[in-house]
Amino acid sequence: MKITLGRYLWERIREVGTRSIMGVPGDFNLQLLDYIFEVEGLKWVGNQNELNAAYAADGYARVKGAPGCFVTTHGVGELSAMNGVAGSNAEHVKVIHVVGQTLRMMQKNHMMIHHNMGERPDHQVHNKSALHVRVDAAELWDTEKAPAEIDRVIRECILQSHPVYIFIPLDMVWEEVPANLLNTKIDLTPPVDEEAEKNAVDSIKKALGEAKTPALFVDGVTRQHGALEAARELADVIKIPTFSSAWGKSIIDESEPYWVGMYNGKVNRPGVKEVMEQSDIVLVLGNFPSDLNTGSFTRGFDQKSTIYINEYDVEIKGRKLSGTHIKSLIERLATAMAGTALSRRTCAAIPPWPPLAEADSTTLTQDWMWCRFASFLRPYDVILADIGTAPFGVLQNTVPAHTHVIAQVYWGSIGYAVPAALGSELALDELHHETGRPRGRTVLLTGDGSLALTMQEIATMIAKDGVKPLIFVINNHGYAVERLIHGEEAPYNDIPPNKYAHLLPLYNHPDSAGAFRRVETKAEFDKVLQLPALQGDSDNVQMVELMLEKMDMPWMIKEMARLRPGA
Amino acid sequence: MKITLGRYLWERIREVGTRSIMGVPGDFNLQLLDYIFEVEGLKWVGNQNELNAAYAADGYARVKGAPGCFVTTHGVGELSAMNGVAGSNAEHVKVIHVVGQTLRMMQKNHMMIHHNMGERPDHQVHNKSALHVRVDAAELWDTEKAPAEIDRVIRECILQSHPVYIFIPLDMVWEEVPANLLNTKIDLTPPVDEEAEKNAVDSIKKALGEAKTPALFVDGVTRQHGALEAARELADVIKIPTFSSAWGKSIIDESEPYWVGMYNGKVNRPGVKEVMEQSDIVLVLGNFPSDLNTGSFTRGFDQKSTIYINEYDVEIKGRKLSGTHIKSLIERLATAMAGTALSRRTCAAIPPWPPLAEADSTTLTQDWMWCRFASFLRPYDVILADIGTAPFGVLQNTVPAHTHVIAQVYWGSIGYAVPAALGSELALDELHHETGRPRGRTVLLTGDGSLALTMQEIATMIAKDGVKPLIFVINNHGYAVERLIHGEEAPYNDIPPNKYAHLLPLYNHPDSAGAFRRVETKAEFDKVLQLPALQGDSDNVQMVELMLEKMDMPWMIKEMARLRPGA
Repeated sequence: MKITLGRYLWERIREVGTRSIMGVPGDFNLQLLDYIFEVEGLKWVGNQNELNAAYAADGYARVKGAPGCFVTTHGVGELSAMNGVAGSNAEHVKVIHVVGQTLRMMQKNHMMIHHNMGERPDHQVHNKSALHVRVDAAELWDTEKAPAEIDRVIRECILQSHPVYIFIPLDMVWEEVPANLLNTKIDLTPPVDEEAEKNAVDSIKKALGEAKTPALFVDGVTRQHGALEAARELADVIKIPTFSSAWGKSIIDESEPYWVGMYNGKVNRPGVKEVMEQSDIVLVLGNFPSDLNTGSFTRGFDQKSTIYINEYDVEIKGRKLSGTHIKSLIERLATAMAGTALSRRTCAAIPPWPPLAEADSTTLTQDWMWCRFASFLRPYDVILADIGTAPFGVLQNTVPAHTHVIAQVYWGSIGYAVPAALGSELALDELHHETGRPRGRTVLLTGDGSLALTMQEIATMIAKDGVKPLIFVINNHGYAVERLIHGEEAPYNDIPPNKYAHLLPLYNHPDSAGAFRRVETKAEFDKVLQLPALQGDSDNVQMVELMLEKMDMPWMIKEMARLRPGA
Repeated sequence: MKITLGRYLWERIREVGTRSIMGVPGDFNLQLLDYIFEVEGLKWVGNQNELNAAYAADGYARVKGAPGCFVTTHGVGELSAMNGVAGSNAEHVKVIHVVGQTLRMMQKNHMMIHHNMGERPDHQVHNKSALHVRVDAAELWDTEKAPAEIDRVIRECILQSHPVYIFIPLDMVWEEVPANLLNTKIDLTPPVDEEAEKNAVDSIKKALGEAKTPALFVDGVTRQHGALEAARELADVIKIPTFSSAWGKSIIDESEPYWVGMYNGKVNRPGVKEVMEQSDIVLVLGNFPSDLNTGSFTRGFDQKSTIYINEYDVEIKGRKLSGTHIKSLIERLATAMAGTALSRRTCAAIPPWPPLAEADSTTLTQDWMWCRFASFLRPYDVILADIGTAPFGVLQNTVPAHTHVIAQVYWGSIGYAVPAALGSELALDELHHETGRPRGRTVLLTGDGSLALTMQEIATMIAKDGVKPLIFVINNHGYAVERLIHGEEAPYNDIPPNKYAHLLPLYNHPDSAGAFRRVETKAEFDKVLQLPALQGDSDNVQMVELMLEKMDMPWMIKEMARLRPGA
């Protein structure tokens, strides 16, 4: 029996756990989109533009654990999405970008078909532009070889946890391939040297056993490579003082007594640094030493007293062992450490910071707001904070277990979070239906500056069943973090004013008046957080506009800005 | 005396006629933006996102004739804009994309600064991604060499009429260079072989003189290379039957008796093709044989009876002459032809098509609408038609002299026209104040599908003084041209519904109720076109929503779709 190559592609995408396909239709992908509807369980989610599609696929992938997938058309579509894919590349996110290309005869003859450049256009030139934002690509041309190529790059996407491209000329999507190719599943086993992993486990176990004041530090790469559960288990087995980076936030259950706090070099809640500095050995999982993830490079570990478990290798007090894989190694280590006696410190719980002061002042302030916000969160919530003031507000506080804090700590593209919240909602809904786990909320935190870049994706949210994020917009009249860095009063840090009360009705929200609130005082903020609609009891998007002063910022961003290189 | 390199850059940009600088601020360009305010006459126009900035710069360049310029920040910003720059590259538009990069010490040390990718990031990697969408780039690093590099790429931008990049590490913008470098203006003389041009003129003159039924065909490249006035003059001197391509539309004064019509191979108003086919020689200016510019490749000229004046060469009945430049050559030819007797045909005027039928039916239809629309236009108007149904409606009709019809005929990126209309308005205002020519209107024609991609740029329009385009939105419930191509009822061709009455108030329009109209019938359309606000008597954005049926399309797009390759 034969099936079309288009169908084959979507069957493979479904096989690895993806259900929602993002994208924008275009004349070189329309027939490819038809085949999505032939595959049971797959769902087409059209986006408002291609950058938004890329962001949505990224948000979906982070929450679902399966690859995010989106489809664009030749040239115009694929280039529009590039910044989004680059973000997935920077932050180890599994994304498959499927590009519907011009027909092969058009390519061979260098025809001046629209969406190309030049008088004898190379139709593959856009593919070259994307070379630097992906780890692999299937450049389909030969129908016989195409299925294996598709399998190969899906595998690379998952094993490397990075974006890949699939370029498919339109006239290939209806070509036929043997259906029984699907009988063999894509092999997703990471290449691991068993012997190396055993040696690594022994060495780590020995080093930890010899330590008097060992500590565990969990960074974000851990989650991206599927090692989240393993890391939680390990932490729970060894029960030594445990920290996270900004990116590693919410991997570890912060209600456990061994949890200390987020450690960011010189930028921490008071008390955290002191506990870290008393450690004679630190076990670091999935280290990622970028500027905003290290308190502006003020976090560093002494090689002689550090054990790094990286993606594909291990570094024990400066000695490197290769051939390991972060997920399987942490799993093995957790098993090996079970029942092992370790020297354990007891640490006093670190109090929230800053304290809930100024309760008598009515004006809403960021530091007060984020402290109050902490108690609003619930297990299984996804907190999506667009880069700006929000991440530095939300990261400072304790979050419930099984939450997922997402901020683009490295790539830092403003506008990312709105479409990513769409992806997150689709993923949360799928996870709830597939696994029965509680349906968490997507809590989107963005600023007026960031929202402007991608706001149209709220239309998609409103139109799609089961998508109902809570959108908090920090309205502080422009680009606040930029004002902090340079140009506090400069006109380039202003943005055109918005009347957000019109945003939900513009996109046809069924209860646009009821779903929108504007908050100016602490009391109003407190009250809004208690509304049933914000507790998850709603069927559609909820929006809260937070009126804040221009230069009011979370303490953490002020510290980070002060310490940044070149400042 | 010394000035900063940042100041130097903006002085040079101003020197070549640019006044409005588009872009989005980011932490690696803020100090560079400060210097804009030091240069008299320059104006910062912040955009809502980077793709929109690129589109706005493109629209500005097309209308102003001077380079469009926009500024982005490292990584996230430059990549977001890439599709816009590629469009400028495809369509020969002068755009300067200035990228504020990370500091040189960060680059040298491969620091993990945000907006980069990888653990030892190459900060220049985004520059490589943009290699294929530009003709040149200044990669600034050495302060002493930087001014000459800036001069060089501005020159290349203008002479090649294509986009260039200027990459400037943030710590270079405050470095100092000699102010007197500015005393020597950038040399913008195109390299021309005088002898070759004289020969070419003689040969063309001879060939035209020998012809019995010569014709002139004007294509879009002519305008992009500054040869618009020259082409008009030539047409007026030789007075032979004159045609344009889709892209060449509005270069020639269509009220002249020698004007025949737009010639698009098999896709024309009845009568046009017949006149063209009677020609024994065709003088083609700035030929651009892309699919949508040739009636889906049904327009072609016989080499033996064609004279091509291309950008840098001439082809006379198959014989090639190099070393010419389209602008100077057309100028020379116009001078040489003055007073020359040519065999001239008299052609009957081609009537409008389709006729203004169905006047008794109240439902608004595209074919009726575009015929009525033709008489709404005035000299010096810019008509910006986003790719979709609009260009194929507006192009079929006669337009007044000195109008400028802009549609992305080759690159075809939907969403382009909204930000481009911002650029157009800024340029029209500048041209009016600088030259005293009448202030035309920017008439933006877009669809609900296209508008969704970039709608936030309307906020910028509303906030900026002197920006007041007329926005017509064809609301036909999704992607109409795609429905025509494939998937008439497919869900991927639907978009989330909009209530456009909320769009202007969302962006704080001072008279949002008065400036918005919804049109459902022919009578309403007719009435709206006569409103004083739409005649130019307004201070801010005016918006008209046109309710049209899903599958109602201009006859021309139906023909083009039927004839397209692979259909």
